[in-house]
Amino acid sequence: VASMQTPFKIAIAGLGTVGQGVIEIIQKNAVLIERRTGRAVEIVAVSSFSASKKRSVDISKYQWVDNAVELTGLPDVDCVVELIGGEDGVAHELVSHALENGKHVVTANKAMVARHGLKLAQNAEFRQVALKYEAAVAGGIPAIKTLMHGLAANNIRSVFGILNGTCNYILSEMGLSGRGFDDVLKEAQDKGYAESDPTFDVDGIDTAHKLCILSALSFGVKPDLDNVLETTSGIRGVSALDFKIAEELGYKIKLLGSAHQNDAGEIAQMVAPCLVHKSAQLASVDGSFNAVFFDGDFVDQVVNVGRGAGAGPTASAVVADIMDIMRGDESAVFGVETRDLQDAKWIDASQNDDRFYIHLSVEDKPGVMANISSALSTHGLSIDELIQRHYHVDGPVSVVMTTHKTARGSLDLVLEKLKSLESVISIDSVFRIIKF
Amino acid sequence: VASMQTPFKIAIAGLGTVGQGVIEIIQKNAVLIERRTGRAVEIVAVSSFSASKKRSVDISKYQWVDNAVELTGLPDVDCVVELIGGEDGVAHELVSHALENGKHVVTANKAMVARHGLKLAQNAEFRQVALKYEAAVAGGIPAIKTLMHGLAANNIRSVFGILNGTCNYILSEMGLSGRGFDDVLKEAQDKGYAESDPTFDVDGIDTAHKLCILSALSFGVKPDLDNVLETTSGIRGVSALDFKIAEELGYKIKLLGSAHQNDAGEIAQMVAPCLVHKSAQLASVDGSFNAVFFDGDFVDQVVNVGRGAGAGPTASAVVADIMDIMRGDESAVFGVETRDLQDAKWIDASQNDDRFYIHLSVEDKPGVMANISSALSTHGLSIDELIQRHYHVDGPVSVVMTTHKTARGSLDLVLEKLKSLESVISIDSVFRIIKF
Repeated sequence: VASMQTPFKIAIAGLGTVGQGVIEIIQKNAVLIERRTGRAVEIVAVSSFSASKKRSVDISKYQWVDNAVELTGLPDVDCVVELIGGEDGVAHELVSHALENGKHVVTANKAMVARHGLKLAQNAEFRQVALKYEAAVAGGIPAIKTLMHGLAANNIRSVFGILNGTCNYILSEMGLSGRGFDDVLKEAQDKGYAESDPTFDVDGIDTAHKLCILSALSFGVKPDLDNVLETTSGIRGVSALDFKIAEELGYKIKLLGSAHQNDAGEIAQMVAPCLVHKSAQLASVDGSFNAVFFDGDFVDQVVNVGRGAGAGPTASAVVADIMDIMRGDESAVFGVETRDLQDAKWIDASQNDDRFYIHLSVEDKPGVMANISSALSTHGLSIDELIQRHYHVDGPVSVVMTTHKTARGSLDLVLEKLKSLESVISIDSVFRIIKF
Repeated sequence: VASMQTPFKIAIAGLGTVGQGVIEIIQKNAVLIERRTGRAVEIVAVSSFSASKKRSVDISKYQWVDNAVELTGLPDVDCVVELIGGEDGVAHELVSHALENGKHVVTANKAMVARHGLKLAQNAEFRQVALKYEAAVAGGIPAIKTLMHGLAANNIRSVFGILNGTCNYILSEMGLSGRGFDDVLKEAQDKGYAESDPTFDVDGIDTAHKLCILSALSFGVKPDLDNVLETTSGIRGVSALDFKIAEELGYKIKLLGSAHQNDAGEIAQMVAPCLVHKSAQLASVDGSFNAVFFDGDFVDQVVNVGRGAGAGPTASAVVADIMDIMRGDESAVFGVETRDLQDAKWIDASQNDDRFYIHLSVEDKPGVMANISSALSTHGLSIDELIQRHYHVDGPVSVVMTTHKTARGSLDLVLEKLKSLESVISIDSVFRIIKF
């Protein structure tokens, strides 16, 4: 573990909150980083949209480059840190060039790793450099390192979690305040917790990016973003009334990304709002916190909770990656060599057995419950709890059921039947109920 | 990341549940281990108390050695895995010899690492071999790797957690069933969850071992077990009545090990039963589960939860260490070189400001509360909640108070004053109230 003499030289592209956070850590914790790695780290060059913008950190001692891709050509740079973001464009060009030029790369770019990760990993292997992306999943939580090192001896059976802080903040606020989605989203935007275009967050796409990466690492399969996106739904459909009813039944509502491998090696992936019992670990993860849950064949259950976004936590993950490279970490990009990454046997997550929450609006007239009960019993669907209540004086009657464990296929038949009933006005929500 | 041709050869000393678990993982997940490290792992020799004992795994293909220390002399062994346990004796002799002979060492031995870790780390550095001990703290939870890698960029301010599964099982059972300590301990012993001599667990010594290791890693200081033991108290004094009252106030009781570094770099360590609010992360960690909580200057709060003991989880941690060594991990034993480990400036943990729970037994006669109130107000102690109740028909009256944040010094003056009051029969419990 001999101390190396030359500093490890990095170039940073993108000086938003995370980029500034990385610079702040390296400036503040320089001694600690050198002690823990046996080597000093030195920022040699930076690039961003505007050189003259006011920033929280002093960048005057670093070489400025207007075009980020030029960073990859600087001869004394060991590692390029990509914090621009976006699936394609400058970020992708920069990272591709950096790897081709034999530079290590650290990135926080979930969209790029989910979409282009396999190709980039092949390039990194070919050039024998590192490509690390801890900050791409769950911010400050070291979820990637937990999979690649802490739980490395396990065959992973399931990985799931609360992976998007914006959605978790909105859902937590809806639960606490009883307000509706649009109202809370607007407030989150005003406070800077949600983007002015919130699509990536609230429609579950950001969670899908992260789940895609976790699946590849957990199961040793090629990342396949399109497969996740097929079974991704966001939180726009979650109503204040759903929260009220879930609360009565003892549940919270969380947006979860989940991937499960069955005994036949088939993998089901899904992003969807789910009901989580209040006594479960995940239920107490509120606000901007994220949680990642792992289930391994020997370790059983492990849960990591921490801040899923923000300058400090995300920069903490970026610098941890830099330090692992400084210490000579030679782990494969997705935990195994790319030639060992399998083509996954995906199965339709919607067909997984689970417990369900079903919320119907029905007409307020005699015989409705008899019709519903008949539809359920015809298909052998077993109901755990049932609430029939007039939540809005002038509105329809709500009927809410939670089921025992059932095949989604049977449930779909029941939902078809319910839709066809004259007295059923609408099927308002169908959510999975998740243990843990 | 080139695949190496020769298998990585290990010898295992100690074939109890964890040793058998390690063999089971290596036999079952051999392909996965080779894919993830680029190298096969091979068990070449084993040693334990009795060669003929019936075991759950087939050890017939491994060389048997009666005296574990002989494993360190086998020329083809790359790594010795020590699973015997105990601060001194064979375990310590084995590990010392193995390091001197230039073998990597993986151990689950918290007592040995806490007591002799510094000297052993110096030996490992001198011989340029690894000494890894993930399984020594919190079983399957990768707490050590989280500190050394995931949170490496942070100056750690606090580390604490539920670190002993036996105590957590007993406390969880007491809380659920309303039964007393002795009763639940006996049941835990009958079920095999507690040792026939439970001293190390229930008196907090095992937690102290683990906290000592976490402190060294978190703050870059020399491990100092005696310092922790000075402020260690166990769970024998926690009564069924305390659980009943804590429940009324919205708290659970957990045995916590905690270490905190203040802005002056002084460190306070403590092992003690504490009150944790039911809505906190740690409160939902029940039974044999452990939880470790980290607070870093950039990452903020991170919590890891998982199984703290058992064959599978502990063996998962042991094999993860073996795999890190196979991948060429050269991290320093305590996160920094031993010459960089500081002599800690310990401060008395009991002097830390906190909220407190105080449970008194008082005589059932007029004027008692007036006397107590006067004692409190004299020393400016501010009370948050107060319960006065006759829990036992023929017994004394219980007076329970929770305080606002207060210096332990002021509290001690109040406790002295209360003790001196004629109407106060006993001070039954004083527990800290912990957030998170």
